[in-house]
Amino acid sequence: MSLIVQKYGGTSVGNAERIGNVADKVIAARKQGHDVVVVVSAMSGETDRLLKLARELDPRPSERELDVLLATGEQVTIALLSIALEKRGCAARSYTGAQVCIRTDSAHTKARIMDIDAERIFASLSAGRVVVVAGFQGVDEQGNITTLGRGGSDTTAVALAAALKADECQIYTDVDGVYTTDPRIEPKARRLDRITFEEMLEMASLGAKVLQIRSVEFAGKYNVPLRVLSSFEQGPGTLITSEEPNMEQALISGVTANRDEAKLTVAGVPDQPGVAHRILGPIAEANIEVDMIVQNVGEHGLTDFTFTVHRNDYDKALDIVKRAAKDMGAREVQGDNRIVKVSIVGVGMRSHAGIASQMFQTLAAEGINIRMISTSEIKISVVVDEKYLELAVRALHSAFKLEQTPGGK
Amino acid sequence: MSLIVQKYGGTSVGNAERIGNVADKVIAARKQGHDVVVVVSAMSGETDRLLKLARELDPRPSERELDVLLATGEQVTIALLSIALEKRGCAARSYTGAQVCIRTDSAHTKARIMDIDAERIFASLSAGRVVVVAGFQGVDEQGNITTLGRGGSDTTAVALAAALKADECQIYTDVDGVYTTDPRIEPKARRLDRITFEEMLEMASLGAKVLQIRSVEFAGKYNVPLRVLSSFEQGPGTLITSEEPNMEQALISGVTANRDEAKLTVAGVPDQPGVAHRILGPIAEANIEVDMIVQNVGEHGLTDFTFTVHRNDYDKALDIVKRAAKDMGAREVQGDNRIVKVSIVGVGMRSHAGIASQMFQTLAAEGINIRMISTSEIKISVVVDEKYLELAVRALHSAFKLEQTPGGK
Repeated sequence: MSLIVQKYGGTSVGNAERIGNVADKVIAARKQGHDVVVVVSAMSGETDRLLKLARELDPRPSERELDVLLATGEQVTIALLSIALEKRGCAARSYTGAQVCIRTDSAHTKARIMDIDAERIFASLSAGRVVVVAGFQGVDEQGNITTLGRGGSDTTAVALAAALKADECQIYTDVDGVYTTDPRIEPKARRLDRITFEEMLEMASLGAKVLQIRSVEFAGKYNVPLRVLSSFEQGPGTLITSEEPNMEQALISGVTANRDEAKLTVAGVPDQPGVAHRILGPIAEANIEVDMIVQNVGEHGLTDFTFTVHRNDYDKALDIVKRAAKDMGAREVQGDNRIVKVSIVGVGMRSHAGIASQMFQTLAAEGINIRMISTSEIKISVVVDEKYLELAVRALHSAFKLEQTPGGK
Repeated sequence: MSLIVQKYGGTSVGNAERIGNVADKVIAARKQGHDVVVVVSAMSGETDRLLKLARELDPRPSERELDVLLATGEQVTIALLSIALEKRGCAARSYTGAQVCIRTDSAHTKARIMDIDAERIFASLSAGRVVVVAGFQGVDEQGNITTLGRGGSDTTAVALAAALKADECQIYTDVDGVYTTDPRIEPKARRLDRITFEEMLEMASLGAKVLQIRSVEFAGKYNVPLRVLSSFEQGPGTLITSEEPNMEQALISGVTANRDEAKLTVAGVPDQPGVAHRILGPIAEANIEVDMIVQNVGEHGLTDFTFTVHRNDYDKALDIVKRAAKDMGAREVQGDNRIVKVSIVGVGMRSHAGIASQMFQTLAAEGINIRMISTSEIKISVVVDEKYLELAVRALHSAFKLEQTPGGK
């Protein structure tokens, strides 16, 4: 007998029929002898419907009230799922974030979970019930309703799993697991049976939008085994866990691509201390997030400084940088918003040299020019022209044999 | 400076534009120097939408979960109204029933308010805010969400007004007050400036569906001045208060008609103790509510026993009574579901004789046969054939000069 936390997203509970299917899945887990806590999101479309109502009244509505409004979405789903479970003869009880004391800070619309009172949940489980908890929401010290931001239901599920010391946290989505790359780009993409928290974090932050980054961080921190699987199909999904020493591990777990990038270069800047700050300070002040940063060693006391931002911030960033460049006496500012970032991710590269050069060689062989490079311990990212995205992904997927199960299985 | 509780129903907050209008009305009251607590219902159509979702999953859903579900309707409105108020520069804060501790019993879907913690509301008012409270909902001792039943938002408003010792509780609806009779039947019907709690109770229970009966009882019990007025038009509405000794009072305040009636007569029953119980016992066991009851003095040791039920229960009641009549050796059972109840209501009749005979005379003059009569201290009801409804109402309205303001104003 184990305790499982299951989380179902908006698409999985999008209408009465689908809610019925979720109830069937929950009951199947109960029949296997598990205690089950279910976390649900708002029905798909509901959050947007509520946001639209709010924006009709105020394009920038009060964040406290926005949280009161949006929290109703999940409250509707917990009631409906509990009704579906009870109809099927399965004792169930719904709880809002406030009712199980999902205590957060007071940062409305992006609150962080501080604490969960597991008592009420354990009491309800002991009474033989399935416990259905509203995702995405909590309550601050003063009793105000808060929300965790979009995708926050994943975080609720992981936080509950950690607080309850659950054996597994299962995230049901509309995909059947984490893939070696986007199957729409490379049809040979393969579902991973297993991936580490660190790899998943890199994959998630690079654009594989299966899980919310914060929930993966949380799961890693509290070592909650996390499983991504499909609401609509049978299958084991992908298990996300800590790295195990004797795990059969591929060098590379996946290839990701991110189109949301734009690149800015300040060329011919006098190479003095403080250059980075003088360029990036005003960018940060404008609340623009910077992703990659590269500074080339200069000749004649001049340096080239390049960084990337989200494509939506490109125009704003360009204006700011042009002003800064003028003040600094830089030669020129170049910008390009037709670039993409392609990355390979894998904990295996830690202990293997030559991964980077194999990546660069593969791209060169396809005639793809690399515009920027950035590396971390388990990731290598390159910026290339947008037109090469699919070609780069497929070439790397093939070069690192990602279509094959590691160990030749 | 006074404290006013305002309540807006579902039609008044039916869309963003109307919510904006409500915000304007609230701000107007603030500008007159009042502290304002607003109670709102779910947007019109929302409760039905949620019920439909629940019934797709279970035609008889769990009542606990139904309350969790339906409570979201009002929660949406409090957030939207607060957003509209803040957009207009008026500090506001929303509270669910749980957040202001509207403590109820645990009778899900028809809970009764036990207590309200006024502290949080006073603190928010002191901070210069409009306080927006979700109607219709509360929370029981265990922290479960409860609802008060349809129309419960009126009760929330009155209970809040009582707990806060508010100067007035204003119920905004889609009519501009309480009328001497239904204006669709008698175009000369006149809006009453003032009516007593007792009269309003009789009018409400007789079918004038302006206010929920329970909220009027509550207002009477705690002596909360209650004002019914229109969300859409300017005007003073109708004030419902305790009777004042020197109030300029008409003999009769209104004429009401109720079509939801059906009549059953058990004729020729042996006149023995226990007759009423033997007939009405099985009716009560079948959960059928009985309205009027008349037993005629019998001849030859026989009696006629007549009572009325809601028209929806007529067929069921007829079956039950036929069985009981047979057991008792009654001569026959007669039934009629084409009858209506017409009543005149007024505290003035307490101290004036002759009101009843004036009523009977008026009806006789129009050739309307009276089938049953029932009286209370401030009401006289007669049952007549359905076809006479409009004629009876207009004749009585005119006979008691209800089109004229009392005192000739």
